[in-house]
Amino acid sequence: MHQPVVVGDLSEREILARISARTGVADAAIVGPGDDAAVLSVAGSLVATTDTLVEGPDFRRAWSDGYSLGWKSAAVNLADVAAMGARPTALLVALAVPNDTPVEYVERIADGLREACDELAPGCAVVGGDLTQSSVLTVAVTALGSTDDRRTVLRSGARAGDTVALAGDLGVAARGLDVLFERFDGSAPRLDELTADDRRAVERQLRPVPPLALGIVAAEAGATSMMDVSDGLALDATRLATASGVTIDLARNALGGHPSTALRGGEDHALLATFTGPIPEGFRPIGRVLEAGETALLVDGSPYAGEAGWDPYRDWHAPDRAVGWSA
Amino acid sequence: MHQPVVVGDLSEREILARISARTGVADAAIVGPGDDAAVLSVAGSLVATTDTLVEGPDFRRAWSDGYSLGWKSAAVNLADVAAMGARPTALLVALAVPNDTPVEYVERIADGLREACDELAPGCAVVGGDLTQSSVLTVAVTALGSTDDRRTVLRSGARAGDTVALAGDLGVAARGLDVLFERFDGSAPRLDELTADDRRAVERQLRPVPPLALGIVAAEAGATSMMDVSDGLALDATRLATASGVTIDLARNALGGHPSTALRGGEDHALLATFTGPIPEGFRPIGRVLEAGETALLVDGSPYAGEAGWDPYRDWHAPDRAVGWSA
Repeated sequence: MHQPVVVGDLSEREILARISARTGVADAAIVGPGDDAAVLSVAGSLVATTDTLVEGPDFRRAWSDGYSLGWKSAAVNLADVAAMGARPTALLVALAVPNDTPVEYVERIADGLREACDELAPGCAVVGGDLTQSSVLTVAVTALGSTDDRRTVLRSGARAGDTVALAGDLGVAARGLDVLFERFDGSAPRLDELTADDRRAVERQLRPVPPLALGIVAAEAGATSMMDVSDGLALDATRLATASGVTIDLARNALGGHPSTALRGGEDHALLATFTGPIPEGFRPIGRVLEAGETALLVDGSPYAGEAGWDPYRDWHAPDRAVGWSA
Repeated sequence: MHQPVVVGDLSEREILARISARTGVADAAIVGPGDDAAVLSVAGSLVATTDTLVEGPDFRRAWSDGYSLGWKSAAVNLADVAAMGARPTALLVALAVPNDTPVEYVERIADGLREACDELAPGCAVVGGDLTQSSVLTVAVTALGSTDDRRTVLRSGARAGDTVALAGDLGVAARGLDVLFERFDGSAPRLDELTADDRRAVERQLRPVPPLALGIVAAEAGATSMMDVSDGLALDATRLATASGVTIDLARNALGGHPSTALRGGEDHALLATFTGPIPEGFRPIGRVLEAGETALLVDGSPYAGEAGWDPYRDWHAPDRAVGWSA
């Protein structure tokens, strides 16, 4: 039987060489991987964010092949850069991997990182990284971006009278996770057994496709506030309202056919923004900004009473689900 | 008995709030922690690097209190920025921690990060981070820096005739690790039982003090190449020589009282540089650059035959040591 080459068979240098052969070259890179640090050109101000995927709470290897893991690690970080109205330019990737991980799995992580950059944020690529031994597969990505000549769009700028708008999916990735738990708990997903909708939901859970280019569109259209919806619309809209000192009133009938899932479900990485004037193409109106009231979030004028998003700490030991997720 | 509050008792938001209350404010920060991403001003080009400490291969909680872990996580990354001739401006910190970790331990990580920045790179501070659940305590730090109006100093610029120079300790951190393994395997180090030299070595292993300010000094003095010595002088000098296409000849009598340890021992984060002209204050000459010969590294004119540095992958299962180290 074919024995795969595992991480423990090779030196750190050999593995890093295999990774960097696959991750492409960032347009902004003056010095890429291989020195003590990368050197990058920055246009305007620098935007920087970090987000980690840990095996168990954030992904399962039974569900995520290396490519999907690399893709998702990139996408969730690129979304945070886009949500500032900035242009992603570079990723740094810290991998901690068990010695018995096939080297091919690590190479596929690199492929997923590169292709997520190429599709979601052309010109962006991995410029540096680190490889460590750990018993828990962990991918910590830092994403960098340039503001160019745009102002950044913060969470704190929403004003009463603004329209609340959204670009991207709501509740799709959460539905995908439900499908994975219900149908494939502990086993690889067999996508051909699923309906087209369920298959798409699983694919979005494993390889999210946030509408990154619309972050810049929103900034240029004068968005007064913006954020990445990673922990569910209800929780993230509450955060935006709180940061802005306003109340947000969402229209349930603008949230699609499953409004409860749309409000609760995380990991779609939609863009939530507010606009004083007309909303740009790609966004759809889902509510309005009011003066601050007793609660930060209303749905159809009433205080939101549903489950508000996901917290990996509180929900980790939930009796009905062994593994939670965060984003 | 007092039961400490552990990470699993609090929400991610509560813990992040406790951390960011302790990490200070970076001079370069336009937008700090709390939004989707930080926004920073950059002067000149951006320098970016990432390095991870994983419990087991990189540290043990029996030896490293939270403060030491935070300090070391910052210091090893700041050293990579300094080794480019750049000025560190900001850190992003991805923490993955077991639920039973006392919150106070995490708070002390934050204190160590801040104080390492304050002492080693004033003006630099944590500007963003991420907190995830993991069974293995993992600290992944990304360090950012500005080149200001200086050129960056790469590993590849050494030229025959240059003087090889070094700033900082050699072999001290490795000796500290030996002391920890020999005297305190599995238990907290009792520093008052040690000689002054051994105590200092242990302190340097747990809280390295790389000569960061000398990175800029070297760049301004015209260093032709430079790198951070993290994996031992022999291995890192070999890397610098290979990147530059030269041979480096080190003088054994310039390497202190324990030249073998100086050549092999990692984690001191000294700065290795080459200069065509006079070497600046703070650096000492340790060898010279020759035209490329059959081997990249000589010691007193003979090919170096000793153990060349540490590789956490190959050496992880070394029979005489259960836990290795990387940097």
